[in-house]
Amino acid sequence: MASHAAALIIGNEVLTAKVRDLNGALLIERLRARGIPLVSVMMVPDAVDAIVEALVYSRRRAQLIFTSGGIGPTHDDVTVRAVALALQRPVVHLPELVKSLRAAFGETPVPAEAMRLAEAPMGSRLISGPRLKYPALACDDIYLLPGVPELFEAQLDTVLEGLHGQPAVTRVVFLDAHEHELAPVLDAAALAEPEVEIGSYPTFDPAAGYRVKVTVEHVDRSRVDAMIERLLRELPKAAVLRVE
Amino acid sequence: MASHAAALIIGNEVLTAKVRDLNGALLIERLRARGIPLVSVMMVPDAVDAIVEALVYSRRRAQLIFTSGGIGPTHDDVTVRAVALALQRPVVHLPELVKSLRAAFGETPVPAEAMRLAEAPMGSRLISGPRLKYPALACDDIYLLPGVPELFEAQLDTVLEGLHGQPAVTRVVFLDAHEHELAPVLDAAALAEPEVEIGSYPTFDPAAGYRVKVTVEHVDRSRVDAMIERLLRELPKAAVLRVE
Repeated sequence: MASHAAALIIGNEVLTAKVRDLNGALLIERLRARGIPLVSVMMVPDAVDAIVEALVYSRRRAQLIFTSGGIGPTHDDVTVRAVALALQRPVVHLPELVKSLRAAFGETPVPAEAMRLAEAPMGSRLISGPRLKYPALACDDIYLLPGVPELFEAQLDTVLEGLHGQPAVTRVVFLDAHEHELAPVLDAAALAEPEVEIGSYPTFDPAAGYRVKVTVEHVDRSRVDAMIERLLRELPKAAVLRVE
Repeated sequence: MASHAAALIIGNEVLTAKVRDLNGALLIERLRARGIPLVSVMMVPDAVDAIVEALVYSRRRAQLIFTSGGIGPTHDDVTVRAVALALQRPVVHLPELVKSLRAAFGETPVPAEAMRLAEAPMGSRLISGPRLKYPALACDDIYLLPGVPELFEAQLDTVLEGLHGQPAVTRVVFLDAHEHELAPVLDAAALAEPEVEIGSYPTFDPAAGYRVKVTVEHVDRSRVDAMIERLLRELPKAAVLRVE
């Protein structure tokens, strides 16, 4: 059973439509491909209390947490502090990061504001990779990724190389029926096999060529196939348009 | 002061990349235009406990809650139950909805599964509008909107006609500098005027033509203008590229 994941997209800019979030959608795709189930995505402002509570919510449901944003050196970058608070750990300077900053500044002393870039919750580690200009920061199972989409993507991909899941198999039945006509069969099937995930998605777009799409999903293909057979036996025959 | 809003995007299909959510982004844009501050967007699965906890999180921070999805008649439609549970109210059949269903089915008795479409938390009301084929469902300040994007948009727009906010004014300074070089000025400004929202957004794309974008936002234009003047006085002059 793969660990579950949850995501926090942190930043006022996303909630105020100044920036359209791309990282949430990317993370959803990447985790799906990797077979790591995602239990929630929360977009929250640059506010320590909101982030701490979102972490509490997420950590009750997921082992792996991915955050996006809020790890720069300005007043609105509070993710490190919030993660430290949620884990009840102090914020420290990571020696490797201090060393990189000193190297970057050469003879000039590193300004206090730049030194904030070396801050991390105590016990954090860095994850490097050939694609990365800046290493990714992780504290236990919390990955603190940057909000800038190019950096987020590169760091996420590097982090995911070290995490393993079980990709799910999905099959789909397209139907010409009202959802309520399918509900008795779907109810009974979902109750009989709660681990096989059954979804029912209506469309009201006549161009779609169907009225309801039923999805069946599980990591074990044979259980998906068995459920598809059951549904095809029990659903109104005339309503079934096609199976994929 | 406008009421704050929070959003719940409900559905396994969104978290498993079967459907890319469009409703969250639309809601962010619409609330922004209406001047209603949005404090969080949570994407959660079709699970009663996850939705109830997300409602608890959201209601601590916002008065208005918008949900998307999970209000159909199948086993994976649990939003009504979750909202009722969060509000500690029973689920009842709304008489107006029962009447519509009876009218739609004519001589045929309404099947039990279709009758689920008339369920709502006790005390709910319907919001109708000229653009709406189906009325929107609201319970106190919780608006239970459908996940299907066309229906979501139409119902959201109708609901928003009855809600009023104060659109914010935003101005932007584009800079050629590292964020840490701006941090002392931004820190002091944010501390002096905590109600004026200052954001700092770096880009690493050389084609952007700037390195950091600083945004200043408030509902009162004069306070935004005063903050922009302060920043232009205090930020390194050579770094300022342009102001919008």
